[in-house]
Amino acid sequence: MSVENFLPGGNEKINKLLRFAAETDKMTAILRRTMLVDGSRRENDAEHSWHIALMCMLFKDFAPQGTDVSRAVQMCIVHDLIEIYAGDTFAYDVSGNQDKAEREAKAADKLFSQLPENLAKDFRTLWEEFDAMETPDAKYAAAMGRLQPFLHNTLTEGHTWKEGKPSLDMVEKRVGVAKEIIPEISDWYNKNIERALNEGWLHN
Amino acid sequence: MSVENFLPGGNEKINKLLRFAAETDKMTAILRRTMLVDGSRRENDAEHSWHIALMCMLFKDFAPQGTDVSRAVQMCIVHDLIEIYAGDTFAYDVSGNQDKAEREAKAADKLFSQLPENLAKDFRTLWEEFDAMETPDAKYAAAMGRLQPFLHNTLTEGHTWKEGKPSLDMVEKRVGVAKEIIPEISDWYNKNIERALNEGWLHN
Repeated sequence: MSVENFLPGGNEKINKLLRFAAETDKMTAILRRTMLVDGSRRENDAEHSWHIALMCMLFKDFAPQGTDVSRAVQMCIVHDLIEIYAGDTFAYDVSGNQDKAEREAKAADKLFSQLPENLAKDFRTLWEEFDAMETPDAKYAAAMGRLQPFLHNTLTEGHTWKEGKPSLDMVEKRVGVAKEIIPEISDWYNKNIERALNEGWLHN
Repeated sequence: MSVENFLPGGNEKINKLLRFAAETDKMTAILRRTMLVDGSRRENDAEHSWHIALMCMLFKDFAPQGTDVSRAVQMCIVHDLIEIYAGDTFAYDVSGNQDKAEREAKAADKLFSQLPENLAKDFRTLWEEFDAMETPDAKYAAAMGRLQPFLHNTLTEGHTWKEGKPSLDMVEKRVGVAKEIIPEISDWYNKNIERALNEGWLHN
């Protein structure tokens, strides 16, 4: 059973879209380091993408002026698709992050070339914009992408902190993006950092 | 490890949103009958919601005039949240579908009451609108919700057809929604129904 069993119909564009939809189901097999909130297993890219898209909807009243929340939602949906070919790179894996950009650009070429031209352009734009974190939509989407694993860590006894052993500065740098966009989370963030240090989940 | 470990900060609305985000991670444990494309296991609600949201983006050139695709995407993100408390009801389970509406309405009360008022209203509207399948956005989103499991069935040797043993009429009625919205899929649909009958995955 696999996408190879795809039986096409008479409309070439429809075939392309359905095949692509089937191919993207591979996101369910790309595991991240983050644990699910219940601690049962690691989450996968499909789950993570859904979760941060939902969080964009949840935090909309805190989105900075000029943010198109519905566009940020769509960014979240597609932002990890290239990991189907590039794999997930752990945020706290220094060497893995050195060739990340190159691996992901190659993966993007392979992935988006399977789409009709206009969609290839749309999807690539959303992915590149998310990655660059410069526009308001991308900053807001990225904030959710940083907030969610932090939230999971606070609920799973600092799972990826214990695994990746990042310094407090590294955590601060990653989650700083979210705090900058939504300063109202700062008090919650500080309290949870304090607990993480006290519990030894994270070290100063 | 669970949402019960949530440590609040000083902003009540932020606490509510973060707690809700953590609660919704339970979608990853709600299993559907549909198999993943690779046949490895059943998909869960988080994965399914992500997948059909993505499909809304993919099929946008085929969306009927008047469809707000970005709104349909958001409907897909939230449409199954109530299953956290109501569970998934198999499309071909006749008795399970008899009290589905009542179970889901109760679940919706429990779920949405955890949100700030304006968001509770937004989310409930999207969910009810999706379920009623009357507006263009809801029809388009629902079409993706019907197309995706059909696609998976064609790639997994008719997994849920063999399990639920629906009549051809029942399948036609479910996927008919998608064919009505996107008639261009009809030829692909027909070819795949023909294969399913020939292979004995589905019976006339």
